[in-house]
Amino acid sequence: MKKINTYLFSAAAGILMVTALNSCTQKTDEAEETIATTEFNLETAKAEIEEANKNFMALVAAGDSVGLANAYTIDAKFMSAGAPSVVGREDILSAMAGIVNSGITKADIRLESVYGTEDLIAEEGELTLFVGDQAVAEEKYIVLWKKEDGKWKLFRDIFNSSLPAE
Amino acid sequence: MKKINTYLFSAAAGILMVTALNSCTQKTDEAEETIATTEFNLETAKAEIEEANKNFMALVAAGDSVGLANAYTIDAKFMSAGAPSVVGREDILSAMAGIVNSGITKADIRLESVYGTEDLIAEEGELTLFVGDQAVAEEKYIVLWKKEDGKWKLFRDIFNSSLPAE
Repeated sequence: MKKINTYLFSAAAGILMVTALNSCTQKTDEAEETIATTEFNLETAKAEIEEANKNFMALVAAGDSVGLANAYTIDAKFMSAGAPSVVGREDILSAMAGIVNSGITKADIRLESVYGTEDLIAEEGELTLFVGDQAVAEEKYIVLWKKEDGKWKLFRDIFNSSLPAE
Repeated sequence: MKKINTYLFSAAAGILMVTALNSCTQKTDEAEETIATTEFNLETAKAEIEEANKNFMALVAAGDSVGLANAYTIDAKFMSAGAPSVVGREDILSAMAGIVNSGITKADIRLESVYGTEDLIAEEGELTLFVGDQAVAEEKYIVLWKKEDGKWKLFRDIFNSSLPAE
């Protein structure tokens, strides 16, 4: 089972098949549940999240704090390091303006894995922030994504430095 | 201390028992499993995560780095602030020993919300770390939990300080 679970998480393309064949918790008698499950595809969701990240990076490059705030759900929580959480899109707009005004010109976001369902995707990855050509932060993150108006948006966003504090 | 160790021993024995009873690979009749799935309830999962957190806090108080490492899945990622991610239970054991040896005597973990399904739970919350009576860190976190051998374990664990860097 452990081996199967590892496979399940490392080879997302096979997730539906593996779930159907092997899950401890698979319902054998519930056709409707099975159909609902097969309609969600984690690979597709991953591609959509990659696309959302590209959009996010473009907004950082454009210094568009309003666009960045709109990438978050209305009830999002931006769990920035070195500060309390910022809750709600209005306050997140201020946080995004702060980041843009701090001189960050580029974010290189590298998705590593996604997990979850159509209701909630958890993404893990790493990112580098730049001021001009200069990398100023190396971080890892987890983002919880939710769909709002049919679009994946950041619902929870937490990250920390991968480098020792100076 | 002795009481906690006794408890841990009982818990470990319980895990083995649960493993023997529930392991997919040892079960041919899936009727009970099907019932369990249909009954997945996020409130129940939340209570189970609360219980896992209590256990985690007891392990911190006991300075039990082996027990703490075993609270993580075998393929877990401990995404500590100020350092690269630590991957796998073996290296996480070293990280836990480091925390125990740093003099942390208490972790106050406060779950705020959980999201997800029987395959993956995302938890958000806040925690305070203590050395004796002295709070030495105020943090927020997201943990992704997965079931391993029928027990919720930390699969991804990321946190950062809610206070400005000194």
